[in-house]
Amino acid sequence: MSSTSGTPKITSLTDLPSSEAKWVKLQKATYTDAKGTERTWEIASRKTTSKSGVDAVAMGNIIYHPSKPPSTILVIQFRPPVNAFTVEWPAGLIDADETPQEAAVRELREETGYVGKVISTSPPVSADPGMTSANLCLCMVEVRLREGDVEPEQQLDEGEDIQRVNVPLSELYERLEEFAANGYVVAAKLYHWAAGVRFAVQHPELFERAGEAGK
Amino acid sequence: MSSTSGTPKITSLTDLPSSEAKWVKLQKATYTDAKGTERTWEIASRKTTSKSGVDAVAMGNIIYHPSKPPSTILVIQFRPPVNAFTVEWPAGLIDADETPQEAAVRELREETGYVGKVISTSPPVSADPGMTSANLCLCMVEVRLREGDVEPEQQLDEGEDIQRVNVPLSELYERLEEFAANGYVVAAKLYHWAAGVRFAVQHPELFERAGEAGK
Repeated sequence: MSSTSGTPKITSLTDLPSSEAKWVKLQKATYTDAKGTERTWEIASRKTTSKSGVDAVAMGNIIYHPSKPPSTILVIQFRPPVNAFTVEWPAGLIDADETPQEAAVRELREETGYVGKVISTSPPVSADPGMTSANLCLCMVEVRLREGDVEPEQQLDEGEDIQRVNVPLSELYERLEEFAANGYVVAAKLYHWAAGVRFAVQHPELFERAGEAGK
Repeated sequence: MSSTSGTPKITSLTDLPSSEAKWVKLQKATYTDAKGTERTWEIASRKTTSKSGVDAVAMGNIIYHPSKPPSTILVIQFRPPVNAFTVEWPAGLIDADETPQEAAVRELREETGYVGKVISTSPPVSADPGMTSANLCLCMVEVRLREGDVEPEQQLDEGEDIQRVNVPLSELYERLEEFAANGYVVAAKLYHWAAGVRFAVQHPELFERAGEAGK
């Protein structure tokens, strides 16, 4: 990490009661299943879910440039939950009165400096439904650069230390595999998107619609 | 849900101390950042991470049939953390002495009845690295059916109630949007894969490699 002066490291890990936590909590759900049997399930939740009912937004961004290949900006940062540098699409929590689209534009600007336009928004999808209630929207965002545009300044919060990496779309999957081989932890959602792209590019015949075969 | 006799529902949600939880725990990490400043982060973790260091495996499955379009099997189940029925690829925790590939074949068989062959395995990727240490491998699994094969029996654990849905690959994205519009919660990872496929199918020119343009 060229702009940093040391490697972050975890110095202690202690049990945290939900009552002392600001961001997350642990709960036990008691529920009746479809057969009427009472069961329990353990759940980790965010304490900060916005009014919209959606916790977070991820920005699947496409950078268009007149003379460079279409690319996407990834962010690299130290993530204490995985005790490693992660490779992700820019993302962030949605503020109390924000829409997912507003949060997407704001967070992309803060984390990367780029001003983008949201071209699609997913329904709220579940980050890890076997374990947590955390959810997010995937906003696809396009950024159109002009020849000679300089790389904009990030607008990071105090304590944020986020590196940007611009990756041509055609190389995304291979670059993620490379990052993983070099000790970075790739976010599952970004990996799945890249794997979907790769699968479609390698097996276009599997995605032909009825009536289109043989065209 | 045709085979069930009632709609599951959560009857209570209570705070759960980590010491009483079997599956998950809440921790506070103290860490020093790249500038040497001491910071803290709240983390939800699984207590059950396997020897391999990987919690779970998801099966991105492709079903080939001689006379039907290529498809994928999704699973629908009530997930207490999101208090809803979810739409996901089959997935499960990796047992103590299993490899991700062994878990993928076993879990696919249990949840869907189908016997598949793992054709690729991702590096361990992080489910939600801002909040949890939970990770998984995405195994792509192919299942090759013969004409006349009947739908196999599931081998569910006690208490599991999982519906299977077979979706043609060419309709996957639209079907996920439809499920979401009808109150199901779609898993983020599956959604991202489908969104990657759709983006690649709709914008093939963005994924051309240098030197391939104009071919």
